[in-house]
Amino acid sequence: MRKATWGLLLLLLLLLACVATCDPSEQDQNGDEKGPRRRGHVSVVVVGGTGDLANKYLWQGFFTLYATQVGKGHTFAFYGGGLSPAERGTPLLFEILKSQACPEELSAERCALIRDQFLRLTQYRQLKTEEDYQTLGQHIKTQLAQEDMKEAGRLFYLSVPAFAYADVAERVNRSCRPPRSAWLRVVLEKPFGHDLRSAQELATRLASSLREDEMYRIDHYLGKQVVSQILPFRKQNRKFLKQIWNKHHIDRMEIVLKETLDAKGRISFYDQYGVIRDVIQNHLTEMMTLLTMTVPKNLTDCKEIDQNKLKVFSAFHPLDKDSAVIGQYQSYNSEVQLELNKTKDHLSLTPTFTGIAVFTTMPQYEGIPIFLTSGKLLDERVGYARITFKNNVFCVQDPNSVACRQKQIVFYIGHGALGYPGILVTKNLFRPALVGSLWKEVSEDKDTLLFGMPLSDYYIQVPTVQREAYTELILQVFRGRMDHFVSADSLLASWRFWTPLLDSQTREFPRPYPGGVANGNQLDFELHGRQVRFCTESLVNVIPQERSGGGGAGDESFQVMQGKYRGADMVSAWPAELVERLADDLQEAAEEATEEGVPFHLALSGGSSPVALFRRLARHHHAFPWWNTHVWLADERCVPPAEAESNFRTVHDHLLRHVAVPYLHVHPMPVQLNQRLCVEEDGGAAAYEREMARLVNGSSFGYVLLGAGADGHTASLFPGTPPDAHGERLVALTESPVKPHQRMSLTFAAINRAQRVGVLIMGKGKHELVTQLSRIKDTPDRWPITKVQPASGRLVWYIDYESLLGQ
Amino acid sequence: MRKATWGLLLLLLLLLACVATCDPSEQDQNGDEKGPRRRGHVSVVVVGGTGDLANKYLWQGFFTLYATQVGKGHTFAFYGGGLSPAERGTPLLFEILKSQACPEELSAERCALIRDQFLRLTQYRQLKTEEDYQTLGQHIKTQLAQEDMKEAGRLFYLSVPAFAYADVAERVNRSCRPPRSAWLRVVLEKPFGHDLRSAQELATRLASSLREDEMYRIDHYLGKQVVSQILPFRKQNRKFLKQIWNKHHIDRMEIVLKETLDAKGRISFYDQYGVIRDVIQNHLTEMMTLLTMTVPKNLTDCKEIDQNKLKVFSAFHPLDKDSAVIGQYQSYNSEVQLELNKTKDHLSLTPTFTGIAVFTTMPQYEGIPIFLTSGKLLDERVGYARITFKNNVFCVQDPNSVACRQKQIVFYIGHGALGYPGILVTKNLFRPALVGSLWKEVSEDKDTLLFGMPLSDYYIQVPTVQREAYTELILQVFRGRMDHFVSADSLLASWRFWTPLLDSQTREFPRPYPGGVANGNQLDFELHGRQVRFCTESLVNVIPQERSGGGGAGDESFQVMQGKYRGADMVSAWPAELVERLADDLQEAAEEATEEGVPFHLALSGGSSPVALFRRLARHHHAFPWWNTHVWLADERCVPPAEAESNFRTVHDHLLRHVAVPYLHVHPMPVQLNQRLCVEEDGGAAAYEREMARLVNGSSFGYVLLGAGADGHTASLFPGTPPDAHGERLVALTESPVKPHQRMSLTFAAINRAQRVGVLIMGKGKHELVTQLSRIKDTPDRWPITKVQPASGRLVWYIDYESLLGQ
Repeated sequence: MRKATWGLLLLLLLLLACVATCDPSEQDQNGDEKGPRRRGHVSVVVVGGTGDLANKYLWQGFFTLYATQVGKGHTFAFYGGGLSPAERGTPLLFEILKSQACPEELSAERCALIRDQFLRLTQYRQLKTEEDYQTLGQHIKTQLAQEDMKEAGRLFYLSVPAFAYADVAERVNRSCRPPRSAWLRVVLEKPFGHDLRSAQELATRLASSLREDEMYRIDHYLGKQVVSQILPFRKQNRKFLKQIWNKHHIDRMEIVLKETLDAKGRISFYDQYGVIRDVIQNHLTEMMTLLTMTVPKNLTDCKEIDQNKLKVFSAFHPLDKDSAVIGQYQSYNSEVQLELNKTKDHLSLTPTFTGIAVFTTMPQYEGIPIFLTSGKLLDERVGYARITFKNNVFCVQDPNSVACRQKQIVFYIGHGALGYPGILVTKNLFRPALVGSLWKEVSEDKDTLLFGMPLSDYYIQVPTVQREAYTELILQVFRGRMDHFVSADSLLASWRFWTPLLDSQTREFPRPYPGGVANGNQLDFELHGRQVRFCTESLVNVIPQERSGGGGAGDESFQVMQGKYRGADMVSAWPAELVERLADDLQEAAEEATEEGVPFHLALSGGSSPVALFRRLARHHHAFPWWNTHVWLADERCVPPAEAESNFRTVHDHLLRHVAVPYLHVHPMPVQLNQRLCVEEDGGAAAYEREMARLVNGSSFGYVLLGAGADGHTASLFPGTPPDAHGERLVALTESPVKPHQRMSLTFAAINRAQRVGVLIMGKGKHELVTQLSRIKDTPDRWPITKVQPASGRLVWYIDYESLLGQ
Repeated sequence: MRKATWGLLLLLLLLLACVATCDPSEQDQNGDEKGPRRRGHVSVVVVGGTGDLANKYLWQGFFTLYATQVGKGHTFAFYGGGLSPAERGTPLLFEILKSQACPEELSAERCALIRDQFLRLTQYRQLKTEEDYQTLGQHIKTQLAQEDMKEAGRLFYLSVPAFAYADVAERVNRSCRPPRSAWLRVVLEKPFGHDLRSAQELATRLASSLREDEMYRIDHYLGKQVVSQILPFRKQNRKFLKQIWNKHHIDRMEIVLKETLDAKGRISFYDQYGVIRDVIQNHLTEMMTLLTMTVPKNLTDCKEIDQNKLKVFSAFHPLDKDSAVIGQYQSYNSEVQLELNKTKDHLSLTPTFTGIAVFTTMPQYEGIPIFLTSGKLLDERVGYARITFKNNVFCVQDPNSVACRQKQIVFYIGHGALGYPGILVTKNLFRPALVGSLWKEVSEDKDTLLFGMPLSDYYIQVPTVQREAYTELILQVFRGRMDHFVSADSLLASWRFWTPLLDSQTREFPRPYPGGVANGNQLDFELHGRQVRFCTESLVNVIPQERSGGGGAGDESFQVMQGKYRGADMVSAWPAELVERLADDLQEAAEEATEEGVPFHLALSGGSSPVALFRRLARHHHAFPWWNTHVWLADERCVPPAEAESNFRTVHDHLLRHVAVPYLHVHPMPVQLNQRLCVEEDGGAAAYEREMARLVNGSSFGYVLLGAGADGHTASLFPGTPPDAHGERLVALTESPVKPHQRMSLTFAAINRAQRVGVLIMGKGKHELVTQLSRIKDTPDRWPITKVQPASGRLVWYIDYESLLGQ
């Protein structure tokens, strides 16, 4: 092989080596191998190295990194960067460094030695201007050359405000990027944006300076020992969990982070963010995904983890205003006025408490409420994820024995009644395998209660050595273990999930709460379907409550108006209330048929208006007698039934998928026969008519739900068709002026045979139609909808205020 | 109008009047109206009038009846009948009568007067022979004539052993039937048979003497005040219950009757019956139907009540051995030996304890476990029906507040911690309306706990006056209120429901338990899917445990054999285990596809063998990824798809109806096109082939499940067809030697493309086939099944021991 080829090969190898990896076979290449091989020099730069976070956590992490890695082949240099000149920064930094604690595993003597070395290897540098970064880059280069060292990589920890990330990243890229043979790792921490848009912007800006595999986005919860063991726990105990980790056994999941502190001193940050952006979108969401994602085959494969996380996000039911309750502690507003120099009439709507219910469409977890809650100024400091299981035991005599108590698995992050991190499984479930060699089982006495059960009723495992999350994560950055960090994709997925809820809250008044134990039960919240509400009426009603708009059950009726329209009954209301009312009326009709012992035949229309109705029926009408209901179509577009344009597909995706209509009770229109669409000779319309005749008494549907187009069409009966075009036929092929032109539709003969007909008209766009129809006589060739006149059935117009009033 | 016509009309009116009624407009015709109109004479005959029940409850009832009815227009005569001659019976009867208590509402003075009258109106009569009954009949007739009284009716209370019912009824019919102008009401009490057959026999015999509307079958639980108010409670609180009385809110129902007594002294009866026949089939079942039936529009309409009850029965999932656990208190056997004069080696298998889980297919209650449990020698005496609700509240701070506790509704029959009958609703649910004017709300202090909650956390309502069940029911017999009694239809429906379970237990050993508090947790049981098992292993294993046969999960594997058959893998086991194994294998295949991110395409066969598999999948495989599964048919009979003969219908009814396969993932074979069945030109087979090509990668199904006929056919590929008859086609029309002759079937080309093929062969009838196939070479024209040879997929034979071993 010629020399040039060897050179190319080497280059390739080097290129491969410098790509951060999450393949476990390589995971320890930088670290744990024995023997002091020469593995290259590592430069660590803590930008913001004299700040609070660096002082409290980061230097401790780097000191521990050094202490555990020294003598294993790498050499190190550490730089603390700050805005101050060196003469002010240097003593500040060394004050911080001196006070770092020794890792437990080191003797005092060895620690003193290592601390000495660490201090000598660390220097302060002003990092303010472009030139400062150039100087730093030059310095590293010079040092490497002077000491004839091979470079392994450079680690930049950006402990600076988020607005500075992009600038620092650009400077690192321009002035401090190592040669391609060495790695570059830049560590960032939340906030990664404020909503989906800003997060995307930040991501785009950072991506112009750094590759995705160079960015280590920290969520320090992923460094918490208990959190990092959620997946290993699920994997190791698969044998037991396989049976119970599903909707048939899990009762609910609770992910909780309660604080006793207020936001004082942090208001300038906090008031822009609030509780959801502060801890829910990131920390609690990470825990939620770890609990619900498919356990990856390879626990260290960051790609698989990421894919599985993204699947979780795509499966959540979207959140809206009714998915959360929010609160604000009463003194918050005055703190805002003080810290932000605002006047007395300034009103902050930033929530300091929230309770959220998340649901997923993942079949194995469908219907399980995942409660996320966090708040400031609550009664205790505690963090945990808790899975409670349904009670499947009948205790004949002694309801207090362990077997009869609630089955639970708890990932306890710390504080609270337990006081330390641990994984707890109630003894009536199973004895879990230890999640790792660095964990041990402990037992506790009977007296302490945790979640209503004495600690002695739990198997408890704890880490043998408690380690700070940052220390842990700094080690993982050094190891290139990206599986402990947040990918751009999952970050954006999280923002995509949370942003609609955040947007919906911008003008909502949080419930005020006094703080501490005095909160009592004011913050308790409860599920109604998939919505949550506070359990009690607000006690302190200092803030005027606006009409919430989305419409809860029970209080909506005052918004509903009844009257006459075109000689028939009309119900009018705001959209949500209107849909609720229509859904109630449908259920009533279905129940009536069921009570009479006859099937309920329901013909549905396509279009967008009924979708809200379908959702409402699927989510809230649990008692609807679907088992006794036949579903028909009022009209269909001539497209294959599985295509998105198909009316049946809409009915299927928003309704049928979610309710238990027997297969044989579902009657899509046969628009596709003999491999072609809506050809007269194939007799699809006639076949549908026969099916109606066979199953529906007198071909008279129990309910036909129609819409009306702005052009006056209904079902697929368009203007311009002579009213008697279809004669006695009940189903016909028709032509639409818009694509797809070919349609199949019930005829007026079929519609007007029905026992009940509802016409649903919603949206501002229909205002002109509604006004027009109120004035004109029956002119079916111009306004087909005017021919909807059930012979002996009842017609009701459901017209929302937007279309009625044009607003 | 001529006189004859008037006469006919009168006769008609009389006929109508003497039919017992449950129409509320007539309910008080015998009773509560004011003013002493002459309403005719009533003769009451208590057959067995000096027995235990009569002494303890019945005469009290009749005395109360008399006391409340005297002066309201009726006159009365009471007869206590017995086997003894009058000289022995008379003093015995009067001893009993004297000791009856006065109804609370009477003054002592008035009571003394009435008791005197009552004693004078009551006489003892020997009722042993046919002649005795003739004499009685004659006596009543004579008395009526002497005193010129109009007869209202005759009430016979049969307080005799069940074996005597039919004889007594015959004698009453022959010798004591009143003229048609008066009513006859004969009161009977359990046991009404021993199982479905004997109950039917008894019903038939009784029906030869008495009309259905003349028989008042007592279940004295229906006379318990709390039980009789279940339907009124549900109706009156409909507003609240409408939302929560369904599977989305109800967690479970518990219907419990615990006794502290043993069976001593009643062994000769009890040992033939056992706990299920003694109290479950009747009392607890009545409560269960009242809790789950549709509330009738008219609470006194016995026809509507009966219809609704029958619907409940038809909707229960059938019970089998695994639906119940049974126990027997340890000293029971020696009591049997003593009382029945048995030797020491006599072993009674009669259960004295049972725990049962019932499930219904009624959509609103689907999945709710209804626990029925009763036993003798338990720790306390108590009876109740309790509905617990799912916890929909998240308590942020104080988990002990009422809002955070379990929501419950309790129908408390008496005894236990409460000590009196009452209807209780936890305050976190709603404040119930009083069920009637004779009920009141009471409050209790905080200290007493009931079902884990202080009594002060319940709304409690109780009857203002506690009334004995028999007294209540005797009044209802007099009023002709059949809605308080058990109809023949619902009695037989109950036996139809319970008999299979009882039959399955005849050779099962009940778990022995010591009795009293010493039972500890030995009798606790838990749900596994819809099965129940004791929570703990039996502590006292004095009785050898037989193999239970039905097969619980976990312990079945030793019964499963793996081997080779015709060069492919074979799994063999007893039928239940084989089906379990196949279901597990199917789920594994489905999970594998799902993990790989591809849909799972499953082709199913018809016939009877797969039905057990479908049931197993529907009931126990909650984690099966149905959402990712497409269901195809391996073959189909040329009949309309909704007909019972259709293979699709079988798949639909036993599988698809119960699992969440999306509508668009279900692919019945298109045997009916253009209004005709399986006509070549209609191209159904080709259409199915195209659908496969469109959706299934390479038209290679993930799993094809086949059976094999005794003639060697598989799918609908029958002997005599040349193996290459279908060429490359994947779907073809075929001919069966048996009706219906026309079929559509996957071809070998389609089958042998599959990734997995399972052939399920079960039953003794296939033994010859299995033997034959094990010997022969591939002879597809004679034995089509031998051509099943997946090209690159895997074939597994599932052959049960019955077909393998011929036994």
